[in-house]
Amino acid sequence: MVTHIKSLKYTINTGDTVLKELTIFLKKNKYSNYFILCDENTLQHCLPLVITNCTPLVNAHIIEIESGETNKTIEIVINCWHTLLENNADKNALLINLGGGVISDLGGFTASTYKRGIDFINIPTTLLAMADASVGGKTGFDFGGLKNSIGTITQPKAVFIYPAFLNTLSQRHINNGLAEVFKIALINNKVFWDYLKTNTKNYLQLITKSVALKNKVVLKDPTDKGVRKALNFGHTIGHAIESLYLNTKNELLHGEAIVIGMILESHIALQKKLVTKTEFVEIITVLYSNFELKKHLSFTSNQLLQLIKNDKKNSNSKLKFALVNKIGGCKVDAEVTLDQIQKAITYFKTNY
Amino acid sequence: MVTHIKSLKYTINTGDTVLKELTIFLKKNKYSNYFILCDENTLQHCLPLVITNCTPLVNAHIIEIESGETNKTIEIVINCWHTLLENNADKNALLINLGGGVISDLGGFTASTYKRGIDFINIPTTLLAMADASVGGKTGFDFGGLKNSIGTITQPKAVFIYPAFLNTLSQRHINNGLAEVFKIALINNKVFWDYLKTNTKNYLQLITKSVALKNKVVLKDPTDKGVRKALNFGHTIGHAIESLYLNTKNELLHGEAIVIGMILESHIALQKKLVTKTEFVEIITVLYSNFELKKHLSFTSNQLLQLIKNDKKNSNSKLKFALVNKIGGCKVDAEVTLDQIQKAITYFKTNY
Repeated sequence: MVTHIKSLKYTINTGDTVLKELTIFLKKNKYSNYFILCDENTLQHCLPLVITNCTPLVNAHIIEIESGETNKTIEIVINCWHTLLENNADKNALLINLGGGVISDLGGFTASTYKRGIDFINIPTTLLAMADASVGGKTGFDFGGLKNSIGTITQPKAVFIYPAFLNTLSQRHINNGLAEVFKIALINNKVFWDYLKTNTKNYLQLITKSVALKNKVVLKDPTDKGVRKALNFGHTIGHAIESLYLNTKNELLHGEAIVIGMILESHIALQKKLVTKTEFVEIITVLYSNFELKKHLSFTSNQLLQLIKNDKKNSNSKLKFALVNKIGGCKVDAEVTLDQIQKAITYFKTNY
Repeated sequence: MVTHIKSLKYTINTGDTVLKELTIFLKKNKYSNYFILCDENTLQHCLPLVITNCTPLVNAHIIEIESGETNKTIEIVINCWHTLLENNADKNALLINLGGGVISDLGGFTASTYKRGIDFINIPTTLLAMADASVGGKTGFDFGGLKNSIGTITQPKAVFIYPAFLNTLSQRHINNGLAEVFKIALINNKVFWDYLKTNTKNYLQLITKSVALKNKVVLKDPTDKGVRKALNFGHTIGHAIESLYLNTKNELLHGEAIVIGMILESHIALQKKLVTKTEFVEIITVLYSNFELKKHLSFTSNQLLQLIKNDKKNSNSKLKFALVNKIGGCKVDAEVTLDQIQKAITYFKTNY
């Protein structure tokens, strides 16, 4: 069975027979050339399955990059551009991003800028990418020590979500994706939030629901100027924490950083009286009971504040956050002071 | 007097009092920060005039890069991204491209990718940029030995054309711009082509007419998938010749390469019977009488053909050209064979 969700001029297809749909998609669109971007993990665990079930791809060019957020750099993008050029990719070539969020971010950026834009599709292989990153059109890479500081908003031509890929993931990587599932529920849908309190194992259902909710937000505001900013809840502080531990032995996965970000930003929402004490306690209780927070995080307030000041979401030198304002709701462009962030950090350090 | 031409969500303003309009534009849009991208020439000859006549810019950050097509590289883009980050440019910052086509291409790309897109405006300072490059939203840089092989299509928020900047240009650089003026006339408007035969000195009129004609084409096909490709007439071969002489002592200006490209591609149009012998003779007579072609071009057919094969405009491994099909008309996606290109090269080498 395959579920189809319509987005901006493209369809998100989810289900066990989705690779058949991919074959139909490829036959319908007459591309000149196929390129598949993958890392050493998806090359081994996912690519054979894709090629076996989708014969048009048997002669596709494979572009392999090293896995991990530390490789989401301009250097890797440059290598991808070179590979496309060397293999005579023309404007009618297709880039297939087979992997997690790093692959779809990098591949999406590469495709959206190569010869001023070629088509790309996403085949997410992690829960994080299936439930969140592969949908919405945000592409890019980390630059100058800041997460996703360079990028474009360019929609894929289609997304194919094949849940069987999840079987190869560790629990840590499953939790990495669950963080974004809890986030979309918390800021957007109380019913889904309540459901998640007791149901986190039916991944296909979680993916379908998350993607449907995220997609509705993206459709209202594709270019991230208004309501879409709600999706950034937990990400202003979360990205700063993620940046801080990039390239260290305490490196955090994206979702791990976002859970901490959600806790701190919920505390700021409490300080600003956007949520009641009861709501705040509910939020952090649910988060603490579902996620094991990494210990040994020894950041100082100053380190975090410096990174937060340079966040993409700020404007006119004011700190602007998306903040939960009820279970299932969010206020965007909420002004936050350094003092409020400081208090949230102190709270977190005392209690975790 | 200022002429206003409406384009895709932005206005192209042309005239002697245009810097006043710029001041009004800046006051209306509440940007957090201004950055002006210029080269050593526009820094000296144009920037003081802009700042004197537009006081909001008195504290703008200046980003200076070295002039010339050889600097239209990813390295310079990286430097620009760094400068924006180091000066805390947020999503509400404005980048002002003050210069010729290299500046607006590079600056447009930098802005369209920085924090997934900030606003930019173009203040063209050469005839080429005024009549052509500053309008239409094509951004990018040269990569892998190919012109504009990486880029985006992103529209500026406004264009301000101040004709007095032309006073500082040499005749060679005026001719550089006239090449694109002749091109738009040849492929789009016989009346304008006939006018140009005897009138090439009223630059303000030429700019206004060229921009209006180009803008009409861009509005019909912003993403360059259909009729807009007509603007590429002369550019498939022209870009290849330009690439070939980049970084050599025979370096050609863009317009100089495009004139040669137009001559060769007109010969291909003749071979394909898209134009009559009479039309072909008229085209090359007008071009030869208005442009002095650079001597000592010693390219081989093989060198050119290799570059042409990798041109952006090709698809499905077929060579696709935009070709003049009457004085004032153009056919896009015309299939061209290597043999036809070869014959055009032989014709050019024998006759020039």
